Amino acid sequence: MATWSAPVRYAEVDQQGIVFNSHYLLYCDETMTAYCAERGLLAFAERIHLVASSLHWRAPARWGDVVEVDARCVRVGTSSFDVHFDIRVATEVVCTVDTTYVLAEDGRSTPIPEDVRGELTRAAN
Amino acid sequence: MATWSAPVRYAEVDQQGIVFNSHYLLYCDETMTAYCAERGLLAFAERIHLVASSLHWRAPARWGDVVEVDARCVRVGTSSFDVHFDIRVATEVVCTVDTTYVLAEDGRSTPIPEDVRGELTRAAN
Amino acid sequence: MATWSAPVRYAEVDQQGIVFNSHYLLYCDETMTAYCAERGLLAFAERIHLVASSLHWRAPARWGDVVEVDARCVRVGTSSFDVHFDIRVATEVVCTVDTTYVLAEDGRSTPIPEDVRGELTRAAN
Amino acid sequence: MATWSAPVRYAEVDQQGIVFNSHYLLYCDETMTAYCAERGLLAFAERIHLVASSLHWRAPARWGDVVEVDARCVRVGTSSFDVHFDIRVATEVVCTVDTTYVLAEDGRSTPIPEDVRGELTRAAN
Repeated sequence: MATWSAPVRYAEVDQQGIVFNSHYLLYCDETMTAYCAERGLLAFAERIHLVASSLHWRAPARWGDVVEVDARCVRVGTSSFDVHFDIRVATEVVCTVDTTYVLAEDGRSTPIPEDVRGELTRAAN
Repeated sequence: MATWSAPVRYAEVDQQGIVFNSHYLLYCDETMTAYCAERGLLAFAERIHLVASSLHWRAPARWGDVVEVDARCVRVGTSSFDVHFDIRVATEVVCTVDTTYVLAEDGRSTPIPEDVRGELTRAAN
Repeated sequence: MATWSAPVRYAEVDQQGIVFNSHYLLYCDETMTAYCAERGLLAFAERIHLVASSLHWRAPARWGDVVEVDARCVRVGTSSFDVHFDIRVATEVVCTVDTTYVLAEDGRSTPIPEDVRGELTRAAN
Repeated sequence: MATWSAPVRYAEVDQQGIVFNSHYLLYCDETMTAYCAERGLLAFAERIHLVASSLHWRAPARWGDVVEVDARCVRVGTSSFDVHFDIRVATEVVCTVDTTYVLAEDGRSTPIPEDVRGELTRAAN
């Protein structure tokens, strides 16, 4: 089961008939919220910031498609962690995204609590 | 001189090759900020809320076009006021928008101060 | 059952913590597609254009809310028709939208076929 | 002089008061169009596709800020090329983006013409 899923919206498609590139980051943002919600980490989610994000596009998504996003945490460091996103249309991965988040308080990075670390890397229910 | 102006962005155009309808409200929002800024009303602008907005589309705007928006305040009531927006591409009006704003504090409408009333209806410099 | 529904996306909320006004037109656009899809009118939907849209906001929607949109066709003229949208959060209507569409071929309005007229005004299954 | 520049729009800022992450890709898209336009490469620009994009955020941009984007082509391969974008607020770089584009015809990569290669890497006027 995908972590997050939604039909492509008409306004997300450009005049080439494909989802405009920036919307893939929006899909990941919604997916990260769902990922944290299913682990009881919504309060934690509000304290994290994006550090970096790398997107690789393999194929376009179009109006009429349903995008499904699988997320998994692939690294947890002291105060930062990495999440890998596979964005699919049916079984085809159309875009992969690797994002690094940091936990920060008042602009300074902060160690990720031990219980959160376990939840971040736990497989989905 | 238009109150606000910007080239159409590629991501604003849909697969029919025309600016997607919702972006016209975004153009008006930016125009309203410019309108208030040129009258010294930015602090006032942060305290107003949209009540209603009516859009009439006459022609499409396309990628490559520059949209120019003329705004003028056409009514000032006790706590609400109306602004008319003409959205143009060159000399052609492609969309008109009439919006009602209300000044509110803690969710309750509040009288618009007398000095603000004068600035709202004053012609642009 | 609502014609269309979706959780508010984080990117749709502005720094006042409420859904930015233009997104309500996007919600209606998705709802209109769903409305036409459930009546077998998707090919018809691709030939219609927005003429006018009036929005009335009653209350804000926020991140964490699910917006549900009820649509119904309230008038069918020769070549144009009106759809009323109630946008709700739970049972509260936060925004109403009335939109006029026209059927057009090559930029000229065209009579709406008789069978389409019946489907447009038919109650949802 | 920046390749592209625009004031941050109110609708681009999220409830944390900072520009939502996906909009940085939109800024780069507009910048790439400006970059190609000033080199006479707009027809070429319509035939290129995004392969990959890596974003690094260093600081937030906020409503009231003007984002300025410097672009330069840092690699030209047989059919693909890389562009580096520095997104600034005043003199501070708030985000860097490295994007790989490919020239493609009918879904197949195609060699970049020699005259285009020269224009891509030429310094701005």
